[in-house]
Amino acid sequence: MNTVEQQLEIIKRGCDELLIEAELRDRLKSGKPLRVKAGFDPTAPDLHLGHTVLLNKLKQLQDLGHHIVFLIGDFTGMIGDPSGKNATRPPLTRDEVEQNARTYTDQVFRILDRAQTEVAFNSAWMDKLNAADMIRLAATYTVARMLERDDFHKRHKGKQPIAIHEFLYPLVQGYDSVALKADMELGGTDQKFNLLMGREVQKHFGQPPQVILTMPLLEGLDGVNKMSKSLNNHVGITEPPSEIFGKLMSVSDELMWRYIELLSFESLQKINARKRAVEQGGNPRDVKFDFAKEIVTRFHGAPAAEAAAADFEARFRRDEIPADIPEVKIAAKGDGLPLSQVLKQAGLTASTSEALRLIEQGGVKINGEKVSDKSLKLARGERCVIQVGKRKFARVSIT
Amino acid sequence: MNTVEQQLEIIKRGCDELLIEAELRDRLKSGKPLRVKAGFDPTAPDLHLGHTVLLNKLKQLQDLGHHIVFLIGDFTGMIGDPSGKNATRPPLTRDEVEQNARTYTDQVFRILDRAQTEVAFNSAWMDKLNAADMIRLAATYTVARMLERDDFHKRHKGKQPIAIHEFLYPLVQGYDSVALKADMELGGTDQKFNLLMGREVQKHFGQPPQVILTMPLLEGLDGVNKMSKSLNNHVGITEPPSEIFGKLMSVSDELMWRYIELLSFESLQKINARKRAVEQGGNPRDVKFDFAKEIVTRFHGAPAAEAAAADFEARFRRDEIPADIPEVKIAAKGDGLPLSQVLKQAGLTASTSEALRLIEQGGVKINGEKVSDKSLKLARGERCVIQVGKRKFARVSIT
Repeated sequence: MNTVEQQLEIIKRGCDELLIEAELRDRLKSGKPLRVKAGFDPTAPDLHLGHTVLLNKLKQLQDLGHHIVFLIGDFTGMIGDPSGKNATRPPLTRDEVEQNARTYTDQVFRILDRAQTEVAFNSAWMDKLNAADMIRLAATYTVARMLERDDFHKRHKGKQPIAIHEFLYPLVQGYDSVALKADMELGGTDQKFNLLMGREVQKHFGQPPQVILTMPLLEGLDGVNKMSKSLNNHVGITEPPSEIFGKLMSVSDELMWRYIELLSFESLQKINARKRAVEQGGNPRDVKFDFAKEIVTRFHGAPAAEAAAADFEARFRRDEIPADIPEVKIAAKGDGLPLSQVLKQAGLTASTSEALRLIEQGGVKINGEKVSDKSLKLARGERCVIQVGKRKFARVSIT
Repeated sequence: MNTVEQQLEIIKRGCDELLIEAELRDRLKSGKPLRVKAGFDPTAPDLHLGHTVLLNKLKQLQDLGHHIVFLIGDFTGMIGDPSGKNATRPPLTRDEVEQNARTYTDQVFRILDRAQTEVAFNSAWMDKLNAADMIRLAATYTVARMLERDDFHKRHKGKQPIAIHEFLYPLVQGYDSVALKADMELGGTDQKFNLLMGREVQKHFGQPPQVILTMPLLEGLDGVNKMSKSLNNHVGITEPPSEIFGKLMSVSDELMWRYIELLSFESLQKINARKRAVEQGGNPRDVKFDFAKEIVTRFHGAPAAEAAAADFEARFRRDEIPADIPEVKIAAKGDGLPLSQVLKQAGLTASTSEALRLIEQGGVKINGEKVSDKSLKLARGERCVIQVGKRKFARVSIT
C-alpha cells in the first residue's frame, strides 16, 4: 500500500488542478477507498489518445485501490436538445444508449480493469426525479453564478441564445455526485465549472463536497489544437498498430515529452533519466520509438507492438531517412489538396506536372509506401513524411 | 347574446392592455365560449377591492357566457421557496392549500357565479410532470428573454441573486395555459410578461396562443400607492358594511371616478351621464354615496348597504359637516401617532394637553363617533374625518 504522500504524487502527475488538496489528503488518510466519479456522454464514442489522459488517471487511482465509477450520462442523452436548435443532438433511445455504452466500455476496458470498475447510468436516479425535485435542484444555484461559466458568459455577452434548460444540465451533473456519494470527480479542464458545481449541490444535500481533479486537454498531432477526430489530428485507440506507431513517430520532439507525461505509465524517475540522456546528446527518436511501442502495446498487446515497430524500421531505416527532415505546412483548399499540388508547394517538385509524372513512375512515397494513385488527395489535418526519389524528404502537415 | 363589438367594449372597459385584439375578435366570432384563465397564489387571502378589479372582469366575461377557470397555483405553493432565502414562503401542506382555497373561493364567489366557475389546481397536471418534462419545458425559453422581465432585469443589474428555479416558475405558469387549453388569460399589469410567456409555451406545444388581458393595479385610499393591506390603504371585502361605506366616502373626488371605472358595474353610459351632471354643478358626494352603496351591496347585500348608508347619513349629515373639509397629511412616527398629537398637528387644538382635555370631555369625534380613549393611536395609512367641538373639522391621512 502506498503512503498518502506517494498517492498524492501519483494523483497529481500531469493534472491541471486539484481542489482541494487538503481535503484529498484527509480523505486518503482515512484509508477508505475513495469513490471516484468520471462522467461521459452516451454518444457513440471512438476514443483517441486525448480521451485516455483522463482514463489513465482513473487507472492510476484504480491501481491505488480506489473505487472507479464510470458514469454514462444517458438521462440527458435521452432528452437530447429539446430546444430543437441542435439537429446533431437527437434524443437517443434506450437501445442506442446501451449499444453506445457497450462500444464505449469495450474501448475503456483496454485501460481500466473491467472487474473493478462500476459502470453507472444516471437515468437510474434521474428518471425518478419529478418536476418539483428539479425545481428544488434549480434553487441551489443562481443565474449570475451560472452565467460565470466561460461558455455561457461568452454566449450571453455575444447575444447568442442560451435556452434555460442548458442551466439545468450542469445541475443534473452535480446531482449525479450526490446520488453516487462521490468523494472525487475527474474531468477535463473545460469541466472545472461543472465539477465545482457538484461540490455546491452536494453541500446543499448535506454531503461533504467532492475533491475535483482536472486533467489537461491533450494537443493533437499538430501540437496546436486540442486532439479531435474532426480536426483529423488524432490517434484513435482502435486504429491499426502500424497507424498508431507511425503517427506517434511523426510528432515533434517537444510534443513527444508532453505525450509521455500524460500518456506513459513509466515512472517519473525513468522519464527524467531519458530527458537527461537526450540533453546529453541522445537521439530523441529512440525515446519516441519506445513510447510508441508502449502505447501500441496498451491497445493491441506486445506482439502487435513488436510487429509495428519492426515494420516501421523496415520502411524508414531502410530508406535512410535523414535526421532533419524539413517541416512544411500547407494550407488546404476546402477539405484537402491533391498530392501533386502538395509536392509542388512543399518544394519537392518544380511543378504539378512533374509531380504527376513522378507519381506515375513510382518515385513518390508517403510514410515509406509507394504511391500510384495520381488523383490522391491529402485531407486537412493529415501529417506524413513524403519522399521523392532517394533524397528529397519533407514532413508535411495539411492545415 | 351580445354582438362581437358589444362584447369587445365590455371586455376592454378599464383594461390596461389587450393582446392581440384581432385574435380575440376572431375567437369571439366563432361563437364558442372562451376558456378564460386567471391564476392565483394559494396563500391565505384577505381580498380587498384591488383584487376585485380582475374578478369583476372575470364576472363580466362570465356574464357574456364565457367559461371562467379560477386557477390556484398550489404546485409551486407546495414547493415554497426551496432556496430557503425567503423565510416568509414556507412550503404549504395539501391541507393548508385546501383550506386557503376555501377561504379564497368563499370570498371570490361574492362576485363570480359559483355554479358556473371552474376551480382548478395546477398540481393536477404538474405533479405528473417528471424532471425530463421540466427540462423540455425549460428549453422553450431563453435566459436572455427571461432576464428581460422587469423584476429579473433589475435584480440582475443590481447584483441581487436570482435562484435558477425562479426562471422555472413563469414557465410552469405558461404550461398551465397549455394544460387548460386557455383561450384567454387575465392578470394585473405586473403579470404581462408571464401572460405573454403562456403564449410562447402554448405555441411550442402546438396550441393557438392565448389572448392576454391585463388590468391596472388599483390605487389605495391615499390615491398614490397600489392598494395593499400592508400599506393599510385598502378596503377589505369582508370588512363590516359601515367600514367599507365610510372608507369609500373618504376618497377624493378624482379617485372616486377611477374607482367607479374599475369597480362599478354601472353601464358606461350611465357613468358618463353622472360625470356630466357633476360638471354642471352636481354634488360629487351624491355620486360617491351611490357608489358606496353599490359596493356594499355587492359584498353584504342590499339591506346591509341601506343600513350603512343610513348610519353614515345619521352620523355626518346630523352634524352638518361642511362641504369643504381641509385635507391634512400627518407623518407617523413608527407605526402610528397618538390622537392627541394628531389633533395638535392638524391644527384642531393648540396643544396636546388641550387635545387630551377635549377627548376627556367628549368633544372629539372620529368619523362621527365620539372618542373616549385618551391613549388612542391612529395607525399609519389611516384616513378619517376628525371633528372637534361643533365647528372644527379635518380630513386626516396618517402617512
